[in-house]
Amino acid sequence: MMREISLSSSFDLGAAVLSDGRTHFRVWAPRRRHVDLHLHSPGQQTLPMSPANDGYFELTLNRDATGARYTYRLDDAVERPDPASRLQESGVHGPSTVVAENFEWKASAWCGIPLSSYVIYELHIGAFTAEGTLDAAIGRIPYLLELGVTAVELMPVAQFPGDRNWGYDGVYPFAVQTSYGGPEALKRFVDACHLAGLAVVLDVVYNHLGPEGNYLRDFGPYFTNRHHTPWGDGINFDGADSGPVRHFFLQNALNWVTEFRIDALRLDATDTIYDFSPKHFLAELAEKLHLRGEALNRRIYALAESAANDVRWVRSAGLGGFGLDAQWNDDFHHALRQTLTGERRGYFADYPDFQHLVRSLEEGFVYQGEYSAYRRRAHGSPSREIPPERFIVCCQNHDQVGNRLKGDRLGHAVDLSRLKLAAAWVLLSPYVPLLFMGEDYNEPAPFPYFVSHGDPDLVAAVREGRKKEFAAFAWEGEPPDPQSEGTYLSAKIQPDLRHSGPPAELFRFYRELIRLRKHLPPLTSLSRREIHLEADEAGRVVWASRRFQNQECVLAFAFGENEARMPYPFASGRFRKHIDTSKPGTPSEAPEIQLLRNEIVTVAPHSVLLLERCFE
Amino acid sequence: MMREISLSSSFDLGAAVLSDGRTHFRVWAPRRRHVDLHLHSPGQQTLPMSPANDGYFELTLNRDATGARYTYRLDDAVERPDPASRLQESGVHGPSTVVAENFEWKASAWCGIPLSSYVIYELHIGAFTAEGTLDAAIGRIPYLLELGVTAVELMPVAQFPGDRNWGYDGVYPFAVQTSYGGPEALKRFVDACHLAGLAVVLDVVYNHLGPEGNYLRDFGPYFTNRHHTPWGDGINFDGADSGPVRHFFLQNALNWVTEFRIDALRLDATDTIYDFSPKHFLAELAEKLHLRGEALNRRIYALAESAANDVRWVRSAGLGGFGLDAQWNDDFHHALRQTLTGERRGYFADYPDFQHLVRSLEEGFVYQGEYSAYRRRAHGSPSREIPPERFIVCCQNHDQVGNRLKGDRLGHAVDLSRLKLAAAWVLLSPYVPLLFMGEDYNEPAPFPYFVSHGDPDLVAAVREGRKKEFAAFAWEGEPPDPQSEGTYLSAKIQPDLRHSGPPAELFRFYRELIRLRKHLPPLTSLSRREIHLEADEAGRVVWASRRFQNQECVLAFAFGENEARMPYPFASGRFRKHIDTSKPGTPSEAPEIQLLRNEIVTVAPHSVLLLERCFE
Repeated sequence: MMREISLSSSFDLGAAVLSDGRTHFRVWAPRRRHVDLHLHSPGQQTLPMSPANDGYFELTLNRDATGARYTYRLDDAVERPDPASRLQESGVHGPSTVVAENFEWKASAWCGIPLSSYVIYELHIGAFTAEGTLDAAIGRIPYLLELGVTAVELMPVAQFPGDRNWGYDGVYPFAVQTSYGGPEALKRFVDACHLAGLAVVLDVVYNHLGPEGNYLRDFGPYFTNRHHTPWGDGINFDGADSGPVRHFFLQNALNWVTEFRIDALRLDATDTIYDFSPKHFLAELAEKLHLRGEALNRRIYALAESAANDVRWVRSAGLGGFGLDAQWNDDFHHALRQTLTGERRGYFADYPDFQHLVRSLEEGFVYQGEYSAYRRRAHGSPSREIPPERFIVCCQNHDQVGNRLKGDRLGHAVDLSRLKLAAAWVLLSPYVPLLFMGEDYNEPAPFPYFVSHGDPDLVAAVREGRKKEFAAFAWEGEPPDPQSEGTYLSAKIQPDLRHSGPPAELFRFYRELIRLRKHLPPLTSLSRREIHLEADEAGRVVWASRRFQNQECVLAFAFGENEARMPYPFASGRFRKHIDTSKPGTPSEAPEIQLLRNEIVTVAPHSVLLLERCFE
Repeated sequence: MMREISLSSSFDLGAAVLSDGRTHFRVWAPRRRHVDLHLHSPGQQTLPMSPANDGYFELTLNRDATGARYTYRLDDAVERPDPASRLQESGVHGPSTVVAENFEWKASAWCGIPLSSYVIYELHIGAFTAEGTLDAAIGRIPYLLELGVTAVELMPVAQFPGDRNWGYDGVYPFAVQTSYGGPEALKRFVDACHLAGLAVVLDVVYNHLGPEGNYLRDFGPYFTNRHHTPWGDGINFDGADSGPVRHFFLQNALNWVTEFRIDALRLDATDTIYDFSPKHFLAELAEKLHLRGEALNRRIYALAESAANDVRWVRSAGLGGFGLDAQWNDDFHHALRQTLTGERRGYFADYPDFQHLVRSLEEGFVYQGEYSAYRRRAHGSPSREIPPERFIVCCQNHDQVGNRLKGDRLGHAVDLSRLKLAAAWVLLSPYVPLLFMGEDYNEPAPFPYFVSHGDPDLVAAVREGRKKEFAAFAWEGEPPDPQSEGTYLSAKIQPDLRHSGPPAELFRFYRELIRLRKHLPPLTSLSRREIHLEADEAGRVVWASRRFQNQECVLAFAFGENEARMPYPFASGRFRKHIDTSKPGTPSEAPEIQLLRNEIVTVAPHSVLLLERCFE
């Protein structure tokens, strides 16, 4: 009776080599009267495409066109690369290339690690190795295994202008950046990770496209002026013709999962995905990813970056939520960094109290509807009832390092004892932890913002934009030039530094924290109901008891500048001392100690204690 | 530990005469360095106001300033009326007047009718009587009681430019239009309604302000360019400084309830209230209205107009909803009108099938996520599980009449038998019914769009805008001039027409439908689980069985052009025939008939049958 939306989930966008050897092209151009496929190589050929339902145009070539370069000619007026291009060998302005999808996987299937076991290592392919490629990154997998992380998160790899970019200026969401090695290299990287037992999280950007090489407007109403984002018009997720726009991005997400075997997607800045439909794009995305995971017999995770502090993101659809698997909790970072450094610029001004830090460990969000002076409005929603595995936390990430004037890391601001304290606060928390590449050995390289745009006006605008952003934070001085190659090169990390000196000591500590998180059941379980906190505001000490069945770990985190003397707040008992950063070195075997309830104990400044209760 | 938003619910905006005889002024002007109160009468006086928290300025006069005219002087640069003005005696550009709130109510309290018993009569104060005032409207209460409606819905009364306006160009949300009689007259009207047992619903506009006399931007960031509405920038419900903006509109809603004893608010075009906060403005509004109702020992209702077809509006907060009490269901109207008239312009093209009509009675929304050709996108969410009392339905309202080229009513398009069919479809439905003034006796006056702006450019723009709107509907011809007084006068209704001729017959029918809805328990109960439908698509007949406990009513609605012969679909039995529009006149006593299951019955075209099963 009623016309259903006709797009099936197996519908393909872009160029695809079919199993029978033919090549199929499909593109959405609803406002165009005719579209031609222009094949550039081998030989020049222009073929009219057939209009299909819903504004799509399609064409099937009776041959395998793998490697052919092509563009679409729109109403004989403009000629553009494919919005769903898989490969842009000559950059964002050049023709698209047909890519065959016939990779021979060595790993039997996906990774299979549950989200609650993720210890995420975020990296930028360009800055992770000297070569800056996916293949070079494969060579670093032994280092990741040595550290003990279980998941790798790649900053966006979708084709961006030039050879250097954080990745958030991508304009071909289906293509893998050529300077990183292109689509085959990504598959090799994912395969190698899976063989090593690592999950792969991919950062994808569904809130905007980059400013250079974005030709989507020539094809159709991908954008709307009803919603305004920090990057201009919002993506048209809820207006007229939004169906194929949603489909484009949904198919993109599914393509990473199905074709590239990505285990989880990190969804960039989801609070700027404006959608007033009854079914928010994010809800549809989570549903589709989960269904695809079921079909593949894997759990696929949708992980959202969001500045909204809104539990709707991770509540189930039945309770009116989007049903995403987890979201970043920026409050956790801000309260921690503010406590460690006393920093008050910008949003850090919102976290002056020790109680903010305590709340972030105990309840998730610090702002749960209270007034935020930085935002000049109420912020957030109550998060106490949300399971901890729905939150991802960190003490550093690409934004929190890179969006500082010099791209300086936490290690530029605090000493080794505080770095250990930060690491323990993250890795012994009940949340899913994320590390930013190199933080594990206090990498000295900064992570400044870098681009390599081709448009001089845009370059000037980016330079101005960064300065303005820093001015808002009252940062004085010149940021590194984003367009300079030197800025990019300065970001390259050197994990070999982990072998000696203070970096080696920190690296050993991170390894030990990750090992203990994996092996002590009270630290592995991500149920908040099993955590009990006692905070001493004067001494700036947080005591935590974490339990799993009849096992218990007791933690103490000392944030004070001075030694604190305070009562031990939990039940008396005998404990194995796994960590005590006030003592030099790591004990080869955990010594036993006795603690009595309310016994006064001395806590060294910036120290961490991890005790495991002994069975009687 | 954390600073709470300091605005208490008893916080006052505007000018208020305190119980001790002093007069308090408070205004929000967060970007102004100083604000002066300028008293124009009696005598000129300019007094500096004191800055208070959150960008407010205040001042207390040691006297009762009732009747004084005043403006605010902002940074010595501009002088403006009070955004929270209670009275604008010289129109939207003139000074505000201090109003004492000391009305002596005759009715003991609010009306107290539950929403499920509402039969709403929507009226425009200007067009309802020759005088066009609230006091004149009081004189029409006996007519409303004669008809039998239980609630009156006033189109917006907030001060708008000039003397004639539908009300959606209001710019002083707290002030009652002077040409209607001002605030005292509204209180007299509400009091008279309550004395007569009628509830009063007030239409309020929280999605935009009118284009003339809107000085809010001079006071603060009431608007945001992050969201775009059909009327320009969206109201700032979720950006920086949105707290006091939300407060302004929340206080407005509470003021109507507390000070004017309004029983329910009709919230205009709520789908254009863009708010990405975790707690949507509508959720906060519903919560605050309900809490205020509890404090007053009354249930206060929040009723939303919404084009979103989104059940989130009426789902409870615990299920992620806004918790509003009901929302208009436009699909119900469109499917009905399309079926009666065959009209295909604009959105009517979305309802060509008889099944659309059936679904609107059975499930609420016609569009529950299906593709809408008119909107060129998926539309709506599943509504089957939503209780019928959460939907308000009609066969005519101010929009559906007034937004036609000539403002023509349904009675201009169809004959008496179809008008009766439409009335029965609405009033015997399980939803809350709304009548548009005069439809009950087929008022011949149109309800064209009218304004009386003072700005010639704006007048020209409105004329153009209306023409464009009609062009989108492929309507040819000239609409009446919105600015002309004649257009306004043509809209005046004459309920005395109900006393004779075909209007009298229709009026008697409406009375009978309302009487039966009130008195037959299966028609009074608004539980959809108690309704069972059988539709004959070929004959275009809908059979409905509605039950309450062991009582049952059987209804038949014949939409076909021809007589239909079809089997009676429910259990055999003896029935009292309350309505049979195929027979002339209304029976003084309902005759009894016998029906056998599957017995072939003859149904006359455009007829309605209402049977009540007799107890054995």
